[in-house]
Amino acid sequence: MRDKLKLYLVTDSDILKGRDFYKCVEDALKGGVTIVQLREKKCLGKEFLEKAYRLRELTKKYNALFIINDRVDIALLVDADGVHVGQKDIPAFEVRRLIGKNKILGVSTRTLEEAVKARNDGADYLGVGAIFATNTKLDAEHVSINKLKDIQKSVDIPIVAIGGLKLDNIDMLKECNVDGYAVVSAILTADDIYNESKVWVNEIINKGC
Amino acid sequence: MRDKLKLYLVTDSDILKGRDFYKCVEDALKGGVTIVQLREKKCLGKEFLEKAYRLRELTKKYNALFIINDRVDIALLVDADGVHVGQKDIPAFEVRRLIGKNKILGVSTRTLEEAVKARNDGADYLGVGAIFATNTKLDAEHVSINKLKDIQKSVDIPIVAIGGLKLDNIDMLKECNVDGYAVVSAILTADDIYNESKVWVNEIINKGC
Repeated sequence: MRDKLKLYLVTDSDILKGRDFYKCVEDALKGGVTIVQLREKKCLGKEFLEKAYRLRELTKKYNALFIINDRVDIALLVDADGVHVGQKDIPAFEVRRLIGKNKILGVSTRTLEEAVKARNDGADYLGVGAIFATNTKLDAEHVSINKLKDIQKSVDIPIVAIGGLKLDNIDMLKECNVDGYAVVSAILTADDIYNESKVWVNEIINKGC
Repeated sequence: MRDKLKLYLVTDSDILKGRDFYKCVEDALKGGVTIVQLREKKCLGKEFLEKAYRLRELTKKYNALFIINDRVDIALLVDADGVHVGQKDIPAFEVRRLIGKNKILGVSTRTLEEAVKARNDGADYLGVGAIFATNTKLDAEHVSINKLKDIQKSVDIPIVAIGGLKLDNIDMLKECNVDGYAVVSAILTADDIYNESKVWVNEIINKGC
């Protein structure tokens, strides 16, 4: 699972400049993202489920992992590889009760305390951020590189950095040796999503980060 | 189950005039509502789950049924008696896959077509409305009494009328012999929720409607 976290795409339907959602995600998959999280905070269940079925197919086609944000019921229905929850979603230990031992559980954390708790509650990986300022999650609190390093030292599960990651600001993360780089707008607002994904793959996978 | 649908309270945290959510629901249960649906469209998962656990306890205490709107995952976690979905939520047959045969499945319908489909997809009861104009669901389309009767003739499962029901407008529903009367503001905006519920119980249960 750890290797598959490397280039982690989180979806956001609102930033696609009117382009087709599935085409955008498929372009990112073709380009090489290794895992996709369907994150649709405004979607009602029917539409969310439709998107989840489609992305389940697409991620399988490109041998990527597929994670559902928040809605465990939808993750179960489409047989996603896992669920990702934030601190205001269903608590991790409750999610684990529903998804069983074999599915992946990711938890967003901003503090060492949250990280340790998530680990103890059964998280398989942590999303840590926002590392940099981000326009796609305006309420996200900043997590310093030092705090990220503290969390890495204290928690023995993979860590995915998220929040404002761009090609020109991730050098610090490479030094930290994080397990994954989560991107939203860096890829989804690119004019050429396929090529942009390939550039990211080259930057953080092919260079052996 | 049919008998328990009679006085059906749907929650709405936004209309409680600052009063305590649990106290309001407990007052309604004390007064005699027979079933409570937790409907919290704005709540994130953690808060929704907390409310669900508390209402699960309260409904057990008063021997009422407990239904969760939309979030099947939360219904499963708190062992609610069932799930209620609208036309924009997870489709009924998918909900049934998750909840199994024994839990109650309710579906909101406005047309004969939707009603027949919901029945065929495994619904145990239908919520039909909005029968009258309502302030708690502004996008609700109107369902005439004639359409309600058409649905009753065509679908052999219990029908709960919803939408703007008040003590002074339910006579037509009594004539239709609906199985349940779903209320939101009629009870939850009352100054004395306990007494208001008792008045409703007297009106639609004790009088043998």
